[in-house]
Formats: sequence, structure tokens, C-alpha cells
Amino acid sequence: MSLITLTTDFGDYSPYAAVMKGVILSVNSDVRIVDLSHRIPPQDVRHGSYFLATTIPYFPPQTIHVAVVDPGVGTERSILLAEACGQFVLAPDNGLLTGLLDLHRPAGMWRITESHFWRSPVSATFHGRDIFAPVAARLASDPTPGHFGIAARERVRLLGQPFRVEAQRIIGCVQFIDGFGNLISNIPSDELSRLATSISVGGSELVGLHWVRTYGEAAPGELVGLISSDGFVEIAVVNGEASRRLGVAAGAAVEIIV
Amino acid sequence: MSLITLTTDFGDYSPYAAVMKGVILSVNSDVRIVDLSHRIPPQDVRHGSYFLATTIPYFPPQTIHVAVVDPGVGTERSILLAEACGQFVLAPDNGLLTGLLDLHRPAGMWRITESHFWRSPVSATFHGRDIFAPVAARLASDPTPGHFGIAARERVRLLGQPFRVEAQRIIGCVQFIDGFGNLISNIPSDELSRLATSISVGGSELVGLHWVRTYGEAAPGELVGLISSDGFVEIAVVNGEASRRLGVAAGAAVEIIV
Amino acid sequence: MSLITLTTDFGDYSPYAAVMKGVILSVNSDVRIVDLSHRIPPQDVRHGSYFLATTIPYFPPQTIHVAVVDPGVGTERSILLAEACGQFVLAPDNGLLTGLLDLHRPAGMWRITESHFWRSPVSATFHGRDIFAPVAARLASDPTPGHFGIAARERVRLLGQPFRVEAQRIIGCVQFIDGFGNLISNIPSDELSRLATSISVGGSELVGLHWVRTYGEAAPGELVGLISSDGFVEIAVVNGEASRRLGVAAGAAVEIIV
Repeated sequence: MSLITLTTDFGDYSPYAAVMKGVILSVNSDVRIVDLSHRIPPQDVRHGSYFLATTIPYFPPQTIHVAVVDPGVGTERSILLAEACGQFVLAPDNGLLTGLLDLHRPAGMWRITESHFWRSPVSATFHGRDIFAPVAARLASDPTPGHFGIAARERVRLLGQPFRVEAQRIIGCVQFIDGFGNLISNIPSDELSRLATSISVGGSELVGLHWVRTYGEAAPGELVGLISSDGFVEIAVVNGEASRRLGVAAGAAVEIIV
Repeated sequence: MSLITLTTDFGDYSPYAAVMKGVILSVNSDVRIVDLSHRIPPQDVRHGSYFLATTIPYFPPQTIHVAVVDPGVGTERSILLAEACGQFVLAPDNGLLTGLLDLHRPAGMWRITESHFWRSPVSATFHGRDIFAPVAARLASDPTPGHFGIAARERVRLLGQPFRVEAQRIIGCVQFIDGFGNLISNIPSDELSRLATSISVGGSELVGLHWVRTYGEAAPGELVGLISSDGFVEIAVVNGEASRRLGVAAGAAVEIIV
Repeated sequence: MSLITLTTDFGDYSPYAAVMKGVILSVNSDVRIVDLSHRIPPQDVRHGSYFLATTIPYFPPQTIHVAVVDPGVGTERSILLAEACGQFVLAPDNGLLTGLLDLHRPAGMWRITESHFWRSPVSATFHGRDIFAPVAARLASDPTPGHFGIAARERVRLLGQPFRVEAQRIIGCVQFIDGFGNLISNIPSDELSRLATSISVGGSELVGLHWVRTYGEAAPGELVGLISSDGFVEIAVVNGEASRRLGVAAGAAVEIIV
């Protein structure tokens, strides 16, 4: 049975994610649906991009991923099907695939145009139900992207959140705050060739920060710096929430003096 | 493998939904369980009714839906099995099926009475575990409703939230607020034969409202009126939350002057 | 297809639970993954212990349960595989299995040591991805615990939350507050051989409490005492939230005068 995963900002309070499951299973009952998340913050394409880049590479070849964080639904934005990591990803062409495709060069990209696979009529506000779900379900039995659209060369990219390395400092930002309140920066750990002498987040130097290998090496309540599980500089509070303690949101500047 | 879907107000913080999955799989391991939602607001039968009416019709024939929003658990309220849209729905007879069965006339209804299919003893507070789960699991291998109870003619109906059309106005209410804060009214879009000249929600006229086809046709922060994906008049704030902006809760009056 | 369940404190806002699903399916695509919960409160081992003890016994034999509430990840704490209720449970050895294994004596326990089954290199902060997921996926095709580690005799136990019975009173605590705000104490209902004459929670006597069999036997808003679905003394507010009304958190003292 083919695997179809779902990543949306619909929440599970609303019926939208459940409706997509119904449409997928009605078109092709021979698939297994795996929920990745329906709690991407509403319309937060950047969070969605990080989420997909972090999760998709772990899935087996041929998995079909459907990602719907789509504030431009019903406008001229198109829908992209990309093949990357030996898998397929279907997403609005609004930058949602920036993280994934910048890291894993796509083997191909297609713009979804073949409307006879869609539900009819197509609504102006719910393409998850009317286009994404039926296309994914049919792709599971016919993994031939060219049947669903035309080859694409361009894609929308989110403006970068670059980090830069200077003589004695590295400047980046908080790219993601996880459910524990840990701050995941966009600074790859291998840039830290020398021990940091100080680190600032959101313009404030973190006083009393300990560099550790894992959370349990410091006492509860202590502020620590470490390498995140996907290889970035991370700031955490042991058994606490760094984001709340420091009053920091995603996007905050991170500056490391080495 | 048969499909069994779950819709509850249990949350996933509590063990109750997981317990139901265990019971279902212990009775019949040859089923696929699909979560629709465990985040129906606690004991909110009206929200559950809207949710089920909006989602169930999209599922394939023979799907078995289990819905537990059940403030009257353990009292004299009975448990209803209905066949509608070629599918089965198991729910407390407390109005939870109002939306679905008002739209899709049931081919049959049964009151669950055959207690030898239940867990024993039956608790007074968790029929999801003791009755709904084992009955659904057995129904998957024996789709003969009459084996589980007796034919029923009546069902509890929620008091309507009717809309009424007058010479120059249509009066209805907000039937649902989704996870984006969009207000979904109960006024079908085809009642809007003439362009609305003004619209009020909760007694306040919405000044500066634009009528659009989809969210992206107005600027971020603008208040828009449009047709929801299931065909009702909807009020939204582009990239924002209309419910918060307007301070409106489900049930608020909606008045359209045409 | 083998069943693997997941119980974590990762939330579904973060990518961690989705990553574990990807790793499991990449190692062994022939498994069915069932989400129990990803909403155990962050690092709340006691809540996790209650959750697992309440849910696992309902699952079929041979189910593999993976539980990750793991504040000590990356430290010397080991990972335990236990066989109980004819099923397997994989969890950090931090007390998370206290509730389950105190109720259901394990047929065997092993400490996970065979690192050639793990992802390599193993991160210091995400053993869910690097150890738990691949071990569970391989255990599904080779249910021989001894292949994955060495027999263990000891396990970490949470300090008990005992109740004690005196001549005229029973003293315990609130062991769990569910999603409805119901307070589930740790006092087994069969200790209540005589009718309670008064009950206090958090030091305050509950005035006007009615003892009922089920919620619907009292009026909305009334404070009731009853037997929970897993057999403990429970305090609830009909159609309301007892935890909020009484301002009580998990762990609060419960005293019953009989």
C-alpha cells in the first residue's frame, strides 16, 4: 500500500484535514495515510518549510507527501509536484518547499495542470480537498508526474535567512522554536570551530550560558547551548522553556562571538 | 481492511481516544483506524454535528464512523447506528447526527441493544470504550446493523439554527468558526441572489467589507465576505482571524441587507 | 502487519514525531503506526506513566509501544524494553513504565545495548529518532528482545503516590486531570466501603458535592463525586471543568472522611 503523508495548518478542530482524508480514501482506498502535522501555525509558510525539510528526508522512497499551508489558495499561485529524496511532494508554489529543495536538489518539478483529475467544480478556498487530495491519491496508483502537469523549472523561494561568518563572530537567527521552547538557530554547528565566548539572542547577551552535549548535563532551570538533533546551534533551558524565559520569537537575531 | 474513523471531544492529552483504538484493534485487528478529530470542544454537540455533516460525505462506502461527544453518557440516552451516504455512523442519540442526517436521509437507523457484543461490565462514564469501540470493530466484520440492535424511527434533533429570508434581508447565524478564525454562517450562498449592500455580525455592521472570490483577492488585514468551501456565506480577515477581530463566537447573529 | 504505537511529549507542532514515523517506515514499511498521544505535557514522566498504564492493557498481544518522554536523553539513563500484557514497550528507564509495570508484572525486561541496530551517529538529544524508532521497527520483524539488548532486573520507579486508609478517612491525591477537567484521584473505588461524609481536595472541603453514578444524574454546573472509568474516585463538574472551578492541579491532596 502506498504511503501518503499530510502536513497542514488546518488544526484538527476544523473539518478540513478529515475531509482530505475522505477524498483520498474515496479515490484510492489502497493507501495508508500518515499524519505528519495539522498544527503548522496558520499560514506560516516559513514554519512549514522548516518542518518539511526536517521530516521528509526520513521517509522511504516513493512516499507521497501532501503539504497545504496555502494563504494564496484560489489566486494565480500554482501547485507544484516535486520529486526529491526519491519521494514526491505536492505543495502550493509559495515557498513552502524552500527548505527541502534547497537541501535536496529535486530530480524533477511539475506544475499541476491536468484538471480532469480534480474534483469538479473546484472551490476558490479549499484546494486541499479539490486538487491536492485527488491528485495525491491518483499519483499513488500512477507515479508518473507528467500525467498530472507540465515540467517546471522555477519555483518560489522564501527569502533566505542567511547566517554570515565574520572574523570573530557568526550572525544568524532563530529559525524554529520547538514544542519544548528550545530555540533552533540557523547556524550549522560545524561553523563553530572555536568555542563561543559569548552568545546573544534578540540583542541580549545570554549570561551564565553553559555549553553542553545534552540537556541532562546541566541542572534544571539552567540556560544551555548545544547542538540540535539536526545539526544547528540550539539554546535551551533544562526542563524549562527558553523561548518564554528569554521572551524570544522565531526570527530573532542570534550572534555568537568566538 | 475496513475503515473505522474516530471523532471525539477527548483531546489527545487524555488516554480515552487511545483506549478506544486499543479496544477496536483487540476485537478486530483487521481494520484501519483513521482519526478525524479528537478536538471537538468538550461536550459541544453542535460543533460535532457540523463537523460530521461536513466530513462524512467525503468518505468511501462502507466506512464505519464512530462519534463520541457524549455529555449524557450512562443516562437513558441511547446509542444510534445510522446508515447514510452508504456508510455507517455510530453516535449517542443526543443530536450529534442532526447535521448529517438532515442533509443525507438515512437508509436505516438502529438503536444499539445487543449487549453481548459490549465489554462487560459496562462503565457508567466511558461507553466509547465499552460499547462504541467493540460494536464498531464487530460491525466491520459483520456489516449487518440488525445484529447489533433494533430498528429505530426517531432520533434526537438539535434545535435548528434556521435562517430566514425576508424582502430585503436574510437573517442567520455563525454556525462554525474554523481554526483560522473564519466565520462560517448557516446562510447558503445561493440565497444571495442579489449583491449584499450591508452585513452585520453580532449586531454590528461590518464597515469596509469587500466581497471576494478567495482570500488572496484582498490585502492582508482586510475584512472580506466570500462563499465558504461548503457553500455558505463566510466572513474572514485576510491572513488574520475574523473571530478575534470582531469578538464573535459561534451562534452570533448574521444579518445581510440586499 | 505489526502494530507500533507512539506516545510522546513532542507535540505535533514540532517535527519530531513525524521524523520518528519516517524512520520506522524506512526501516520496516510493513508496520501500521498508531498515534496514542503526542501531547503528554513536556517532560511530565508522571503523566506519561499514568497514560501508558491506562491505555496499553487494551491493545492486542504483540503490539509494540514506543514511549518517549525523556528529559534525560543523552545522559547515562538507559533504554528499557519490557514485555507486559503480552506486548512490548520501549521507553527510557526513567520511571515512565512505573504505572504499567506495577500493575502488570513484566514477563521480561531488557536494556537496549545492541548499537548496530541504531542510526549512526546517535545524536545526544534525539534518541526517539536514532534508537527507539529503528529498534521498534526491527523488533516488529524479529520479536526476540534478546537480540536488542541484555536482560535487566532493575528499573527506575517513580516515587509512589500512595493512598492510605485510616479508621475514618482515606488520604490520597489527584493523579490525573483529564481533558474535561475531571480530577482522577489515586483512591481505588473499592476502598470506599462506606459512604463518604465529606471530601476535601487541596485542603478545601467540597461543599454541596453529590455522589452520582454518571455525570448526567446531576444538573449542569453541579460538583459531583463518582467512580472513574478505570475505577478510581473522581471529582467532576457536570458540563464544566472541576480543575478550573476548584483551582486544583495534578498532585493535589484528596481526603475522604467516611
